[in-house]
Amino acid sequence: MIKDYSGLYQFIKKQQSFLCVGLDSDISRIPQHIIEKEEDPIFEFNKAIIDATKDLCVAYKPNIAFYESLGPNGWHSLKKTLDYIPKSHFTIADAKRGDIGNTSIQYAKTFFESLSFDSITVAPYMGEDSIKPFLTFKDKWVILLALTSNKGSLDFQLIEDKMGVPLYKEVLKKSSQWGSVENMMYVVGATKPTFLSEIRKIIPNHFLLVPGVGAQGGSLSEVCKYGLNDKVGLLVNSSRSIIFASSGIDFAKAARSAAASIQQEMKSILDSM
Amino acid sequence: MIKDYSGLYQFIKKQQSFLCVGLDSDISRIPQHIIEKEEDPIFEFNKAIIDATKDLCVAYKPNIAFYESLGPNGWHSLKKTLDYIPKSHFTIADAKRGDIGNTSIQYAKTFFESLSFDSITVAPYMGEDSIKPFLTFKDKWVILLALTSNKGSLDFQLIEDKMGVPLYKEVLKKSSQWGSVENMMYVVGATKPTFLSEIRKIIPNHFLLVPGVGAQGGSLSEVCKYGLNDKVGLLVNSSRSIIFASSGIDFAKAARSAAASIQQEMKSILDSM
Repeated sequence: MIKDYSGLYQFIKKQQSFLCVGLDSDISRIPQHIIEKEEDPIFEFNKAIIDATKDLCVAYKPNIAFYESLGPNGWHSLKKTLDYIPKSHFTIADAKRGDIGNTSIQYAKTFFESLSFDSITVAPYMGEDSIKPFLTFKDKWVILLALTSNKGSLDFQLIEDKMGVPLYKEVLKKSSQWGSVENMMYVVGATKPTFLSEIRKIIPNHFLLVPGVGAQGGSLSEVCKYGLNDKVGLLVNSSRSIIFASSGIDFAKAARSAAASIQQEMKSILDSM
Repeated sequence: MIKDYSGLYQFIKKQQSFLCVGLDSDISRIPQHIIEKEEDPIFEFNKAIIDATKDLCVAYKPNIAFYESLGPNGWHSLKKTLDYIPKSHFTIADAKRGDIGNTSIQYAKTFFESLSFDSITVAPYMGEDSIKPFLTFKDKWVILLALTSNKGSLDFQLIEDKMGVPLYKEVLKKSSQWGSVENMMYVVGATKPTFLSEIRKIIPNHFLLVPGVGAQGGSLSEVCKYGLNDKVGLLVNSSRSIIFASSGIDFAKAARSAAASIQQEMKSILDSM
């Protein structure tokens, strides 16, 4: 599977899904029987989740904080998880990095080379030279924060300039000049689906990574109503509501069931396109 | 040494210095004789730099990207470095993290608990609930990006709202309500020292971490002219111009000499206060 724009669209059609499963594998929420039995419980948990969901999704998004917080062992678990994800699937390092150029290059090497992620989430505050280093890696993607799904997104992202343009739109307008639809996507929170139609006026063709469906309360049908384009153009992420659907020995089955329910809804949306 | 506001001021007076040494310990720039001889060249390099500079500075700031890029071994080197820094000195994890609350808590645990850093740099884009989790840790500090020293700072940080207030000032105004001078500092780039007088009108008392003196071209006297307050209120960082002052076997001596030259200038500034 080629992980370019067209390859991603083809894979979405094949899977009848644009679901991204967020591997926010919080050690304090891993089922007890795995903690007790396994030497690397995070990896064993992820492995079971991947086995249970890989035919229902197109992407996996490990949230790096949950691995980093476990020290060096967490990085081993992350590496093993990356190696286990099928090569067909798009991988996202949810790391929200961004620094001056010589530092961003180091972050890019970590996630694109050492760990072989296809993409990384990046924060826009430091501007062009903090983002461009990531774009110099062939066949790799930057997923830039635009409008996030948390309450704090109201603090700065919606501040309007003298022309009435909110900051998140400035981020979309400027940054979309730095790359192309082939190496940039944007994070757009699902808790504000009507904003998606505004966003589609600025970037009609880019893929959007939409977190906040599930535990954070976003609605899939609303997201699709305003966010779909003719190549789908959406990766909809769900983390906790899938991976922690059950805390018992049936956790993988419950995760599959939660993912299948979203995938079924996606399938009917794709069928009607 | 208590790492509160007053303790930091006392330590600055004792050291006659407000220098922070940035441990951007890029493996590709570590002197060859260390690479060849040592099992953990990053730690051995840092150890020599710390030994050579600890009486001339008040803080150390490892740039996390350079450790993370080495995989699990990099985290071991970072932990050993942290343990080696004298307890008297203020430590800064230059990590520029920031995410929704349940994720920021994980980042805080990593840097404040597992690694015992006194502080961490955080990006403001995601707003209050991405920053507050860091502020719940007793005697720990958030150092929030306000106005950075890179060219890309022009892209978004200077966008003015309808009242003519640039974004970085909005960040200062809002975020300074979320914590206090006892648990928040701000990153303000030294390449724009005249902005410091504007910043001091908004946050007269907060400590500012000023990168960009040295390799990035900022001037110490200009920074002090506009940024000093009656408790000094500045930590001025220099990374590459100190730690890579020489790439030969004399690297530690050269680092000491570069740090001493800055410390002498700081001493005369402090004497004249």
